[in-house]
Amino acid sequence: MSYEKLHSLERELKLVADASALLGWDQEVLMPSKGVAYRAEQMAWFSGYLHERFTSPEVGDWIAAAEDAGSAVGDIYSAANLREWRRQYTRSTCLPKKLVEDFAESTALAKAAWAGARDKSDFGLFAPHLEKLVSLSREHAERWGYEEHLYDALLDQFERGATTRRLSATLGALRESLLPVVLEATAQEPLDRTKFTAHYPKEKQEAFNREVAESIGFDFEAGRIDTAVHPFCSGMAPFDTRLTTRYDEGDFLSSLFGVLHEAGHGLYEQGLERGRRGEPVGAAVSLGVHESQSRLWENHVGRSRAFWEKWLPRAAEYFPHLAAVSVEEMFEAVNQAELSHIRVESDEVTYDLHILLRFEMEREIFAGNLAIKDVPAEWNRRFESLFGLKVESDAMGCLQDIHWSIGIFGYFPTYSLGNINAAHLVAAARRQDPALAARMDRADYSALLDWMRVHIHRPGSLYLPDEIVTRAAGSPATADALVEHLRSRYLRNAG
Amino acid sequence: MSYEKLHSLERELKLVADASALLGWDQEVLMPSKGVAYRAEQMAWFSGYLHERFTSPEVGDWIAAAEDAGSAVGDIYSAANLREWRRQYTRSTCLPKKLVEDFAESTALAKAAWAGARDKSDFGLFAPHLEKLVSLSREHAERWGYEEHLYDALLDQFERGATTRRLSATLGALRESLLPVVLEATAQEPLDRTKFTAHYPKEKQEAFNREVAESIGFDFEAGRIDTAVHPFCSGMAPFDTRLTTRYDEGDFLSSLFGVLHEAGHGLYEQGLERGRRGEPVGAAVSLGVHESQSRLWENHVGRSRAFWEKWLPRAAEYFPHLAAVSVEEMFEAVNQAELSHIRVESDEVTYDLHILLRFEMEREIFAGNLAIKDVPAEWNRRFESLFGLKVESDAMGCLQDIHWSIGIFGYFPTYSLGNINAAHLVAAARRQDPALAARMDRADYSALLDWMRVHIHRPGSLYLPDEIVTRAAGSPATADALVEHLRSRYLRNAG
Repeated sequence: MSYEKLHSLERELKLVADASALLGWDQEVLMPSKGVAYRAEQMAWFSGYLHERFTSPEVGDWIAAAEDAGSAVGDIYSAANLREWRRQYTRSTCLPKKLVEDFAESTALAKAAWAGARDKSDFGLFAPHLEKLVSLSREHAERWGYEEHLYDALLDQFERGATTRRLSATLGALRESLLPVVLEATAQEPLDRTKFTAHYPKEKQEAFNREVAESIGFDFEAGRIDTAVHPFCSGMAPFDTRLTTRYDEGDFLSSLFGVLHEAGHGLYEQGLERGRRGEPVGAAVSLGVHESQSRLWENHVGRSRAFWEKWLPRAAEYFPHLAAVSVEEMFEAVNQAELSHIRVESDEVTYDLHILLRFEMEREIFAGNLAIKDVPAEWNRRFESLFGLKVESDAMGCLQDIHWSIGIFGYFPTYSLGNINAAHLVAAARRQDPALAARMDRADYSALLDWMRVHIHRPGSLYLPDEIVTRAAGSPATADALVEHLRSRYLRNAG
Repeated sequence: MSYEKLHSLERELKLVADASALLGWDQEVLMPSKGVAYRAEQMAWFSGYLHERFTSPEVGDWIAAAEDAGSAVGDIYSAANLREWRRQYTRSTCLPKKLVEDFAESTALAKAAWAGARDKSDFGLFAPHLEKLVSLSREHAERWGYEEHLYDALLDQFERGATTRRLSATLGALRESLLPVVLEATAQEPLDRTKFTAHYPKEKQEAFNREVAESIGFDFEAGRIDTAVHPFCSGMAPFDTRLTTRYDEGDFLSSLFGVLHEAGHGLYEQGLERGRRGEPVGAAVSLGVHESQSRLWENHVGRSRAFWEKWLPRAAEYFPHLAAVSVEEMFEAVNQAELSHIRVESDEVTYDLHILLRFEMEREIFAGNLAIKDVPAEWNRRFESLFGLKVESDAMGCLQDIHWSIGIFGYFPTYSLGNINAAHLVAAARRQDPALAARMDRADYSALLDWMRVHIHRPGSLYLPDEIVTRAAGSPATADALVEHLRSRYLRNAG
């Protein structure tokens, strides 16, 4: 009885939260500029309303009563839902409504300020907003609690069980394994890109991307692709998953890989159990698992030789000068390693160095070792020491990512966990099912998608992230498969 | 004190209602098709929530207490707000939450069914939805109450004080005055359109329309234009007014006049007192006044000789073959009278006949004289008798308009009231201010917009619709100015 009340409330609140998700999406993609202040007020209302309904004492009573009923509640799905609702309730009731509303309004304003600051490449315009968001996030962390580092409480919101200590170890170890690969891969002679130099009209990119996304299984009757400054995926309803990308008319690969990446997120969203709206078991389990799905389609599929054997001839119909490009040249072009400034444009080999930098910056900010005003200088110093490159402007440096502007701290490390999980899952799927591997090598990804549907998408949050991956792959994720994948792909000419 | 509580509640509810408006807009313009059922549930939630908050007994107490305080409440603005809140409260508390939610969900489903039925030109697919919406509207009308005809209660929701009896008289009289003009205008030899036959790419139409809309004062930092099946304007936030139009690549005038029409609505929305969010005095007063603004820009401005003297050369830059067209030919082309099937594509002269047809159909449906299943046959019969044309398909007949699919009955007559008001207001503005008239004749519309801002937009709902128009024009609206305007424009070659 208490469980049913909870369940019905959660279904209702999901409906309302999804409306708020549309408002957030619209602000990124369509909203006229003068609408920003009012939209911030609206977003704050939704946050406040949802928080207030969910944190009412009645809800706490229902959870406690359902817990007392114990196994009488029923199946493992209900038990998992209850586990998650308890956790969410405990975390939410530490937060006063004022803090929740303040945070929502501040992020809406900061997001707009960030876009302006990035255009002008002027961190100073964004600094007061970042200061505010860091301070509010600190307050969140203090209220949620943590064992060792305040930053742990922020990490944990995106990836259960992640800690500063463990991530420092994991990312440190990954760096050690990657370092020889990075050095060797970036030392190779860069590809002559003359053959690729052309005008790629946005409309043609859109049409080609759509065709590719459709072929890997993205359902356009339950989704869209639009244009936005920062690519993202919003699963805003059981049958409404929206991707965004951005276009460079000098390089069709930029939007294509953006779409493959976001479509990977989208396939996860579209593959969740749609009848379980409002139930945690019907929702994605963590960002590290979410990112494994996007990386899988972007890198393991989209940068493979088999993919281009199939798609290069089609691409050449949209962009005729590509008829002069061979599959081998295309394969090389999409697998160039280079030390560069922009994370979202970086290659698979150097990508995790970008994450390492952000992880360390956040760790230092929340440890109180780094003042906001010093962020650009510190970023530039660390970047030069990691990449050997100077940072000439804030837009190319600490203003490049949207995350901080929407109050997201502790999120970046999940990208590296995603890379690790993606490689681990693909290797497991290929090993478990040789026919699947053979089909992948013919650029037929339906078996791969089915495998992910069964092992990753449908379970939702039935188990915790580590357990989902371990059950799917048959062993816990380590970076071995990722390093092996990168070695075999990037060191192909190395002797 | 009670007034302040009311005021604060209304501000909050407006914020929420505006979120719901975005969901409605998105459903028309962007939403993937499979999202429709869930969106219907969301819309129903918003209707239910808003209804429940506004109809709580506490709100009734606040209104009564504020009324008792009388003139102590303060200025005429507060008094007007209170007058409107009382009316809304009385009307809303007659309606059970169940009916409100049922209506919202039914309209969302009916809207989608209508779009499908129109595509297939099959009224049968839409009929059960229409049946349901008529039945629910009847229940609304019974609860709201009426003196003479049930249909009066429906008319009154869009135009205060409108009744079946008065509208039958007004529209009947308008028909009598128009009849000779229609006969003479449609008997004229139709224009040879060969010169206009060309391909007008959608992107160029968009760019041209945008330029025109901007020049008449539409603020694109607080608004957008998008594509939708049925053109509409949604003023969904103080600084967010969105227009839609549709494109025919064989005829750029269709989207242009669509945009001018919707931009007229948009200018009204953008001209309301933005600081008065949630207050009736900050909202548009009626549909008959709203439509006066759209008709003004579409017809009195957009179809004038002066407009084309200015804009034809610019249009010819977008569409080069128009260089061969003279201003006089263009003026003739946009002022052709023709007896035709589609209301939104009809000319000024025959337009009100389309309204008359719909008004009479609705009157008979709600009088119980016409069954839903007989709607197509009856439509076709009446249409042929009015226009002398056969209706070959439902899509060209009773399925052409979106209104019934979203449960809007009693709305159509406001279009004719809009035509009457537009002509009356333009004539008054020109008479009151000869400099304004001279500027209009040079295609400079800034003084005209200023006049509307002062006399129509800023007052919002401070007075009732008739009084707003009477105060602005100096006399109550009659059809005289409209008939005079049509005579002078359409009978130019009649000797």
